[in-house]
Amino acid sequence: MAKVFDYAEVAKHNTAESCWVVLYGNVYDVTEFIPEHPGGSKVILQLAGTDATDEYDPIHPPGILEENLKPENKLGTVNPDTLPTEEKSPVQAGEVAQEGPVDLDTLLNLDEIEEVATKQISHKTWAYYYSASDDLASKSFNNRVYRQILLRPRMFVDCTNCDTSTSFLGHNVKLPIYVSPAAMARLAHPDGEHGIAQACEQYGAMHVISQNASMTPEQIVADAKPGQVFGWQLYVQNERSKSEAMLARINKLKAVKFICLTLDAPVPGKREEDERSKNISANLPSTGAKTGQKPMGLGQSLFWGTAADLTWKTTLPWLAEHTDLPIVLKGIQTHEDAYLASLHAPQVKGVILSNHGGRALDTAPPAVHTLLEIRKYCPEVFDRIEVWVDGGIKRGTDIVKALCLGARGVGIGRAALFGLGAGGTPGVKRVLEILKAETETCMRLLGAQKISDLGPQFINTRVVERDIYDGPDGLERPSLWSMAKAKL
Amino acid sequence: MAKVFDYAEVAKHNTAESCWVVLYGNVYDVTEFIPEHPGGSKVILQLAGTDATDEYDPIHPPGILEENLKPENKLGTVNPDTLPTEEKSPVQAGEVAQEGPVDLDTLLNLDEIEEVATKQISHKTWAYYYSASDDLASKSFNNRVYRQILLRPRMFVDCTNCDTSTSFLGHNVKLPIYVSPAAMARLAHPDGEHGIAQACEQYGAMHVISQNASMTPEQIVADAKPGQVFGWQLYVQNERSKSEAMLARINKLKAVKFICLTLDAPVPGKREEDERSKNISANLPSTGAKTGQKPMGLGQSLFWGTAADLTWKTTLPWLAEHTDLPIVLKGIQTHEDAYLASLHAPQVKGVILSNHGGRALDTAPPAVHTLLEIRKYCPEVFDRIEVWVDGGIKRGTDIVKALCLGARGVGIGRAALFGLGAGGTPGVKRVLEILKAETETCMRLLGAQKISDLGPQFINTRVVERDIYDGPDGLERPSLWSMAKAKL
Amino acid sequence: MAKVFDYAEVAKHNTAESCWVVLYGNVYDVTEFIPEHPGGSKVILQLAGTDATDEYDPIHPPGILEENLKPENKLGTVNPDTLPTEEKSPVQAGEVAQEGPVDLDTLLNLDEIEEVATKQISHKTWAYYYSASDDLASKSFNNRVYRQILLRPRMFVDCTNCDTSTSFLGHNVKLPIYVSPAAMARLAHPDGEHGIAQACEQYGAMHVISQNASMTPEQIVADAKPGQVFGWQLYVQNERSKSEAMLARINKLKAVKFICLTLDAPVPGKREEDERSKNISANLPSTGAKTGQKPMGLGQSLFWGTAADLTWKTTLPWLAEHTDLPIVLKGIQTHEDAYLASLHAPQVKGVILSNHGGRALDTAPPAVHTLLEIRKYCPEVFDRIEVWVDGGIKRGTDIVKALCLGARGVGIGRAALFGLGAGGTPGVKRVLEILKAETETCMRLLGAQKISDLGPQFINTRVVERDIYDGPDGLERPSLWSMAKAKL
Amino acid sequence: MAKVFDYAEVAKHNTAESCWVVLYGNVYDVTEFIPEHPGGSKVILQLAGTDATDEYDPIHPPGILEENLKPENKLGTVNPDTLPTEEKSPVQAGEVAQEGPVDLDTLLNLDEIEEVATKQISHKTWAYYYSASDDLASKSFNNRVYRQILLRPRMFVDCTNCDTSTSFLGHNVKLPIYVSPAAMARLAHPDGEHGIAQACEQYGAMHVISQNASMTPEQIVADAKPGQVFGWQLYVQNERSKSEAMLARINKLKAVKFICLTLDAPVPGKREEDERSKNISANLPSTGAKTGQKPMGLGQSLFWGTAADLTWKTTLPWLAEHTDLPIVLKGIQTHEDAYLASLHAPQVKGVILSNHGGRALDTAPPAVHTLLEIRKYCPEVFDRIEVWVDGGIKRGTDIVKALCLGARGVGIGRAALFGLGAGGTPGVKRVLEILKAETETCMRLLGAQKISDLGPQFINTRVVERDIYDGPDGLERPSLWSMAKAKL
Repeated sequence: MAKVFDYAEVAKHNTAESCWVVLYGNVYDVTEFIPEHPGGSKVILQLAGTDATDEYDPIHPPGILEENLKPENKLGTVNPDTLPTEEKSPVQAGEVAQEGPVDLDTLLNLDEIEEVATKQISHKTWAYYYSASDDLASKSFNNRVYRQILLRPRMFVDCTNCDTSTSFLGHNVKLPIYVSPAAMARLAHPDGEHGIAQACEQYGAMHVISQNASMTPEQIVADAKPGQVFGWQLYVQNERSKSEAMLARINKLKAVKFICLTLDAPVPGKREEDERSKNISANLPSTGAKTGQKPMGLGQSLFWGTAADLTWKTTLPWLAEHTDLPIVLKGIQTHEDAYLASLHAPQVKGVILSNHGGRALDTAPPAVHTLLEIRKYCPEVFDRIEVWVDGGIKRGTDIVKALCLGARGVGIGRAALFGLGAGGTPGVKRVLEILKAETETCMRLLGAQKISDLGPQFINTRVVERDIYDGPDGLERPSLWSMAKAKL
Repeated sequence: MAKVFDYAEVAKHNTAESCWVVLYGNVYDVTEFIPEHPGGSKVILQLAGTDATDEYDPIHPPGILEENLKPENKLGTVNPDTLPTEEKSPVQAGEVAQEGPVDLDTLLNLDEIEEVATKQISHKTWAYYYSASDDLASKSFNNRVYRQILLRPRMFVDCTNCDTSTSFLGHNVKLPIYVSPAAMARLAHPDGEHGIAQACEQYGAMHVISQNASMTPEQIVADAKPGQVFGWQLYVQNERSKSEAMLARINKLKAVKFICLTLDAPVPGKREEDERSKNISANLPSTGAKTGQKPMGLGQSLFWGTAADLTWKTTLPWLAEHTDLPIVLKGIQTHEDAYLASLHAPQVKGVILSNHGGRALDTAPPAVHTLLEIRKYCPEVFDRIEVWVDGGIKRGTDIVKALCLGARGVGIGRAALFGLGAGGTPGVKRVLEILKAETETCMRLLGAQKISDLGPQFINTRVVERDIYDGPDGLERPSLWSMAKAKL
Repeated sequence: MAKVFDYAEVAKHNTAESCWVVLYGNVYDVTEFIPEHPGGSKVILQLAGTDATDEYDPIHPPGILEENLKPENKLGTVNPDTLPTEEKSPVQAGEVAQEGPVDLDTLLNLDEIEEVATKQISHKTWAYYYSASDDLASKSFNNRVYRQILLRPRMFVDCTNCDTSTSFLGHNVKLPIYVSPAAMARLAHPDGEHGIAQACEQYGAMHVISQNASMTPEQIVADAKPGQVFGWQLYVQNERSKSEAMLARINKLKAVKFICLTLDAPVPGKREEDERSKNISANLPSTGAKTGQKPMGLGQSLFWGTAADLTWKTTLPWLAEHTDLPIVLKGIQTHEDAYLASLHAPQVKGVILSNHGGRALDTAPPAVHTLLEIRKYCPEVFDRIEVWVDGGIKRGTDIVKALCLGARGVGIGRAALFGLGAGGTPGVKRVLEILKAETETCMRLLGAQKISDLGPQFINTRVVERDIYDGPDGLERPSLWSMAKAKL
Repeated sequence: MAKVFDYAEVAKHNTAESCWVVLYGNVYDVTEFIPEHPGGSKVILQLAGTDATDEYDPIHPPGILEENLKPENKLGTVNPDTLPTEEKSPVQAGEVAQEGPVDLDTLLNLDEIEEVATKQISHKTWAYYYSASDDLASKSFNNRVYRQILLRPRMFVDCTNCDTSTSFLGHNVKLPIYVSPAAMARLAHPDGEHGIAQACEQYGAMHVISQNASMTPEQIVADAKPGQVFGWQLYVQNERSKSEAMLARINKLKAVKFICLTLDAPVPGKREEDERSKNISANLPSTGAKTGQKPMGLGQSLFWGTAADLTWKTTLPWLAEHTDLPIVLKGIQTHEDAYLASLHAPQVKGVILSNHGGRALDTAPPAVHTLLEIRKYCPEVFDRIEVWVDGGIKRGTDIVKALCLGARGVGIGRAALFGLGAGGTPGVKRVLEILKAETETCMRLLGAQKISDLGPQFINTRVVERDIYDGPDGLERPSLWSMAKAKL
């Protein structure tokens, strides 16, 4: 029989020497766990002696508490009558006043959805989703580069029918769209990643589950329909055993068809908007050890424990030992790395050209640049592996342009989260509905009846082509080919 | 003897089961027509049981009521004394206060005319005219691309005389300008398309009548002077018999010299400003079938019934069966299609390079790009057919630049409608007066005495040339020539 | 003995049938002159029966009254006691309140001088000076193109001494700067063109007198010092005899060393800001004959009577008959015309690359483009004749860049007038002082000790070079060479 | 025994005939010194008869008073009780209200530090630091050019370790960063240059001491730790003996490892913001002699006495006579001069590509352009001497990009001063902490473990490459090579 505590008793244990917290009505002694907390010790101490449920809930998937605490750390339950009455408003309700439900049908494009979500979600959540590194140059360019590409509509083509269906790694989907592995969906709305999965199901989109999801993979795929396609994102942990344990769990999920190994963020980028919102306090990566704890954004805290020592030679063989699922490498930003990836087929079945939504290294190239580099220097990559892209997608025309350049599909990250923030699961559906309609309109007006019709003859990329990498010091044939091959 | 109804009696029939409306003093039972209405059923039901004349009038040409209703649907007349006194203000008077008549001579350029018109016309009308697809990128680029071209004035040339006369398809005109087939002119002013025709007559411009005109072709050409030149725009309908009937009517009009077959909008573009004004409620094209009626702009409603299955092989022969008039293909946006069109001479006598004023596919190229493509890849097109352009014309210098690049003439769409909105027929005349004066000033200052003097030596297009399409992946000679020819 | 009139008597003659005006205390009957007035009849009728001195004075040079009226039109004098007391403020005092004298030394650059002048002069005057054609694209580009050129400073060069002296057509000057023939200086300040000449004398700059100066050439050069250099601008008149008479007058002025024949404005450009200020009412060039008098700017009115029929073959021989002075052709905008001009040496001794300050044809090229064209296609022009440039000069660095490209000197137009507006003669001096100091600083920091040191090695024009004309349709060698030569 | 004066007695001597001032409690007769004052006479006369300590202190290093005045000019001390009570606020406290100490850890980037400093320091100080020449084009481009370069992150590279250490002229440093010789640090904060040195020591950065420092070199290096590296900036004086005396002093300082000879400002640029703040009154360089004293900025006053007659042939041999320290030439802006410098190895051991922070010649090229020129035309320079760059550095990515292009290190000038202004020594430390962390993040995300890994394969400079100098008139091989060599 669990012991029942008065809240006043809990409140006394508010120091690093004795630190209790209330979570979901239970009382825990987390003193021993403080130094191990991925998000840093300070954030726990700020909540020591209080009911931390509202802060804890939307950023931790179920079960993680049990994984990390010993049974004896659970001391008992709190007497609900003793809880303070001035209840904090739930984080997911946002820090701004609600203006009543939005008629999603009146939102005509992704910018309007972001605008509504920005009002609905808390500032901290917005800062985490919106932020990108340094001056947001890559985030902005990710979208702008699509505006630099012109379309070439062909006339007198029967466009009565328009079919957006395609496949990812051999699995049929109805749209060339997937939701990127974006973290912490429940910050935006309690529907969380499960809601995203539901929306994807309705529109036939794919869903790549974030390792930092606020729900467990099992919860997210729980209601998957037959034929629904998921991937799972892996950030390899310094403690490889943790990653191996997760892979073992994922291997059991039939709906998950591949592992998406994220490479573009071995260390966190500098997302100032996120840091400024001081979601969590911790160390600046390079200087923290010496200068003590400094404000840290949610983005940084999520990197706790992420391995920075991955290599072509060691990581892929290790992965092969722990899963038979095909691998998709996320974060490729040069044609050299795309080429190297293609040499690892068939274990590697795809790459995602991505600069992490502009959140890793500012002034990194947009996926469109890398697509054009591959087309120019090593087009054989397209024959060996699938090439997906993400970053900057706002319009159906953006999707069509990426496909014309050889991408198999495009990922949306922030758009799905803002859809969730604007209206939960129906908000994500509205995002997909808009993109589907815009994609179809674009294809019809181009005179393309199906995805396989799309090709470079439908676009004019000349403005972009003159800006892409042309080898060190303008040498036509990049001289680092030999270096790249030597690395294998 | 027609029966006379009290308005109160009419007002009872305000449901889908029994739907009466008053139009021009007559009472109609439109219950059976509701599901057939091109603009959707909802818009009719909103007006059920009321006097709908003010809403109906400016967007329906005369006679269309009779075409669509059976004689027995006309029930009688309404007793005017029973009509509600709080009369609605007429739509064409706008939703904003009139500020008294504008002195048109004080309006010095097309932007100022648009500014005045924007204040005079209703917001819905403005939204319909102003709107373009997605982010208005093509609409904006249509004009900006002319700013990228520099002129090259030659000195010591006698410019005492300046002759702007030329010909379209062999018919003499005084200006290298035509009014594009822009729909729904009576929304702007009761003078409507007839007013546009009058203005064209005075300045010797050509007029292409919109299929979606708010007056009948017969009304529009009623007062045509000898030598005045008209074209008629055809959107082929799914019910081909409707189009055939229209062609039969047009064939009888001597003033109409050609059919302008519109190709660039087999499905409507996404004009958000228009949708946002919720002119009419209906379905989003791709999703409506499942999710019920959603807000729809006037632009979308006009596409009801438009055929999306036109092809080079089937449509031109069908047209040849129903008219002997020469064909001008509107909406060509690639040199490949211009070349294909030229192979269909002499049935096809011209093409209009147009992205539909940026209203169809956003980021489609401006006509100037297509002109430069043709010059580069298949200049023989200019010898076989006439090439006209529209989109973005704001200045006489724009017109001269287009002509220097090989265009025979330029079309203005919004400018004519905004002229109408600013001041009825005199407003359209002012538009043409300004463009004529600016064109003459430009020609004189260049040292060109007549239209045939104009050529590429008078312009510097280098900034634009480096952006035009250069073949897939930058191959100098587009490799899709073979594909294009294979399509014939 | 002159008759003396009461003002009340004059005031009765205020119609086209009998039109009297008071000018400088004299009473004139100008009835017969109304239809001949270069500025149109309406402007006279507006002042009929009044004392028109304030309106007349700043835009008419002395003596022009006597030239145009018969002796008997001078009726007598007005009794000054009968003049209305509510005296109009003089035009040159501006329509805005004076804020007291400005300390010119606190004005650090030409923009600040323009800003102060804009406050001091009347709106109409500002509109006349500031305005340029259409959308002011050329006016803006004239300056921006200098910003596109980078400088290349060389180190370890002794720059103790810096000599800005050079020569124009063999006449020594202390600065490579001349004041362009800008009209109507007394609108800005009573010091007028004479003040400009005084400022030029102090700084050793050259002065080209406008044909539309508000003072006579004789007045302007009255106080010329030995060695001071003037040119005189000729707009050839339809009545050639008028131009011939002016040339005869100019031939007698020793200080005038050349005739600057203006070619770039055979008809007026469309300067909307000027038209909007309705300085004078008259006809739009192309439409006036039919539609009656419309508002007209001061710029247009000055073109009254200007010949539009000049040609290489007829005009230069005619000029040779009437003056032995060397000719400088102003308004060259293509390398072809520069080349043609060079073939007319030695009568033609120079050209001015100019788009008339952006006031003639909008989107005409800046002088820097034409300089680069000449360098590329016909550099021999620099050996045969002098090449001067104007338009867009705001900084000493602009001057140095033009000289590095081969220009012998640069003209400033608006800057001199705004200097006059900001502070009369001392204001013009301040303009020249600033430009001289900036030019010297630039030369020293480049490592150039004298004007002849300047050359293309000191500048990086690559951004501009890729935009200049490259022949019709990008042919490397302009194909209109033959046409150009054929015109000779 | 020093005589004691009442302040009232001092106040009487307030003219050019008898001019006394109080400095640090002492009374001086400076009458004879007035015409020799480097900052002009007016600034002294403004303070004649007053306690000038607050104005004098932050811009004069200790000892300079003794150097310039004779012993007998020191008349005695002032009776402190007689000093006026309405004490002026110290200059370094700024003219705006203090808002309490700033938490430096909340400032996330260099822009935020500048923003805070701008509020803390006086307007005059801000104007001196912030200002650049003419229109600030080069200042702005210095930073923007880094934004034009894209990074190329490589994946699957172990980035556990990241080492930013490198060496300058063989001396080890922990960061590839040095503080540029920026003048007058005590204007920002009493910690002054000594504080900058302390911050550099903590982060292992190098420090180049300004000749115009507000502290003596001896004071600045006083607390240098073993291994800490300094350079000393030389502006050669017209009175060579003064420079020789300074070199003799510097030769004795062990911590100073090289002489940084500044070449890019033989005369001052035109820094209008600084002039506008009228820090000091004096002559415009070119016109002052004639027109009397005009307002002058602090920047100009510092040039008093600077030699403008340096040459390759005379200056380096002279330097060799007076110091054995290696020479670094600051202000190289063309590949020609970089090449010439490399021919003077080993006396010259390095060059700094710099346009003086945009403060000398506006529209001079950014260091990135010069780097690319050297790479293209004379890459052997990198083998012979070290190439450093400054100007526009705001981010760690900027530093990494410069290093990828071959720079050995980068200098920061304003950033250090603004750091000082934002928070004294800790503010400068915060600047270095941020840049170090950003540099490390960038290197890790690129996949570079140490400085020597960086190279052109990590960047895409294509946008910049097409703008760099390409020889006069676009000749591929600059024709002035011969001229350059002839100058040796």
